[in-house]
Amino acid sequence: MIKTDILIIGAGPTGLFAVFEAGLLKLKCHLIDALPQPGGQCSEIYPKKPIYDIPGFPEILAGDLTKNLLEQGKQFEPGFTLGERAETIEKQEDGSFIVTTNKGTQHQAPVVAIAGGLGSFEPRKPAIDGIVDYEDKGVEYIIKDPEFYRDKKVVISGGGDSALDWSIFLTDVASEVTLIHRRNEFRGALDSVEKVGELTKLGKINLITPAEVKGVHGNGKIETLTVVKDGETSQIETDHFIPLFGLSPKLGPIGNWGLDIEKNAIKVDNSLNYQTNIPGVFAIGDVNTYPEKLKLILCGFHEATLMCQAAYRIINPGKKYVLKYTTVSGIDGFDGTRKEAPKAVVQAIN
Amino acid sequence: MIKTDILIIGAGPTGLFAVFEAGLLKLKCHLIDALPQPGGQCSEIYPKKPIYDIPGFPEILAGDLTKNLLEQGKQFEPGFTLGERAETIEKQEDGSFIVTTNKGTQHQAPVVAIAGGLGSFEPRKPAIDGIVDYEDKGVEYIIKDPEFYRDKKVVISGGGDSALDWSIFLTDVASEVTLIHRRNEFRGALDSVEKVGELTKLGKINLITPAEVKGVHGNGKIETLTVVKDGETSQIETDHFIPLFGLSPKLGPIGNWGLDIEKNAIKVDNSLNYQTNIPGVFAIGDVNTYPEKLKLILCGFHEATLMCQAAYRIINPGKKYVLKYTTVSGIDGFDGTRKEAPKAVVQAIN
Repeated sequence: MIKTDILIIGAGPTGLFAVFEAGLLKLKCHLIDALPQPGGQCSEIYPKKPIYDIPGFPEILAGDLTKNLLEQGKQFEPGFTLGERAETIEKQEDGSFIVTTNKGTQHQAPVVAIAGGLGSFEPRKPAIDGIVDYEDKGVEYIIKDPEFYRDKKVVISGGGDSALDWSIFLTDVASEVTLIHRRNEFRGALDSVEKVGELTKLGKINLITPAEVKGVHGNGKIETLTVVKDGETSQIETDHFIPLFGLSPKLGPIGNWGLDIEKNAIKVDNSLNYQTNIPGVFAIGDVNTYPEKLKLILCGFHEATLMCQAAYRIINPGKKYVLKYTTVSGIDGFDGTRKEAPKAVVQAIN
Repeated sequence: MIKTDILIIGAGPTGLFAVFEAGLLKLKCHLIDALPQPGGQCSEIYPKKPIYDIPGFPEILAGDLTKNLLEQGKQFEPGFTLGERAETIEKQEDGSFIVTTNKGTQHQAPVVAIAGGLGSFEPRKPAIDGIVDYEDKGVEYIIKDPEFYRDKKVVISGGGDSALDWSIFLTDVASEVTLIHRRNEFRGALDSVEKVGELTKLGKINLITPAEVKGVHGNGKIETLTVVKDGETSQIETDHFIPLFGLSPKLGPIGNWGLDIEKNAIKVDNSLNYQTNIPGVFAIGDVNTYPEKLKLILCGFHEATLMCQAAYRIINPGKKYVLKYTTVSGIDGFDGTRKEAPKAVVQAIN
């Protein structure tokens, strides 16, 4: 059982910033995310894209924002359960909650903050008969650790940035890389498209277009794929088949937690501190809704901050908190580090 | 008469960020601030101090935050009325407001956003008989433009960073710099204290401690000061006397605008968009109050953003606004510039 003060569902920018604000209040956080790395959409969907509306950054790449937020919170030593989806929540007699993931990991905390963004990103799956039987047996929809493919034969299908970028990356790792797309045209960053073209000429990527994988076969694990190109059918041997058709956000199991839901978002009390209809459970960032709600990262930062104050009062009933400014009081990390502004000296001149 | 869409009272971080968010909605802003430069407290009180709780910045100097926010908004060409204090507001028949400063400058806008921080910073004045008669006649409490002191005799009094830093700076500008402080000890950055010590040894600063200015004299303008040191009284000739005893925030004339005030802050409706009791007048950032309010810069950013949406609806009645993400839609500046993410290409590989 993982125990913490604030259990945060979703490790996107809002969840990551909550770690920092909670830390200022001496509260510890643990984050659960279905994706294999922190950052949410910023890391998974558009790490190399610029964001222009983060206050104080005329421009910042989404991946860099994630890095900065991790750095900002790291002295408060957040815990992470990554690559697992929060599945069930159970209220305990002592008022705390136990949240269990799809892989059975259990977490207990007096406060739960759902920072799930647009939902957990579920891969779009190709309509191929029997593909479900090979999931985790050679069929993967997300690449969690490229080393997993070391010296293996890999077939990727898809026509966007993910398919292009992973095909390029895996040429240095896998023994064979095949890229299959139903059109000749790819849609992605110019340099990625050009790089795949080069690697194809060098024989490092086996490019098959316009073509589609129509069948998956094997004995207990994937062994061959049926590919149709220009009406002609052929078989390809492979160790892995990785369809990268994009991710689509789904509220998922959280939808069954008894929360007030409106248009796929969780209703919260924005006149106070973004608490849901379940006391002790908050929703912050893009996952929540209220009158005048804007789904902007900067709003999530504000919501996370007010949520932490409310969490403090739940966890420390009756204790009064006086806001201290970091510029004045500095920051004491849970790891023993201290950050502070250079102190003024009081010194005579003579 | 200066006309604009959103008239912002206060050019601190919240007001500056409102310029950017308004710009995304094609609304133009004009800012009034009593201080001679934008940035509010961040520029005036602690430009060289680090802030640790701006989301995405593990550490940023307050002065750099100001610079970044100015840069982020500059393509939306904000107007500034600086060094003047918003004095009166008058509602017009067409629903717009006219705001007039203490120097008589008039501004007209359909929406007014008060982003006045802790109030306008008023200098603390020394208790010297008749000093008021010499204000702007050789006595200044804020240095607006150091060139004003070129080749003049200057007496600064005070024992903090402002007194130290301006004494150092003016040695290169004024013909004589005298620094008077009632103690031998100064309180400031170590390098400033040491630098003043060096300049004193070099004879570039005439340091008089422990001493106090007890009288101001002159014919129509300041000419001499009475200084008491160790019980002994002497006269010093000078062209300027600049007491730098710090600034203290006052809500000031805004307190008489008919707004609901609670503990020196303006009450707003945080369940919607931070509007005050006067429709069309909003209060954002540290100047406002509502249940669970936190006086943090990051909260001001959120409040500014929601205020701009409400301003849009007031200025464009009946028109529907659909939120666009800057990453997707880019930014079109009022100055003709365009920022956008590198576009994906659709391109065949063969």
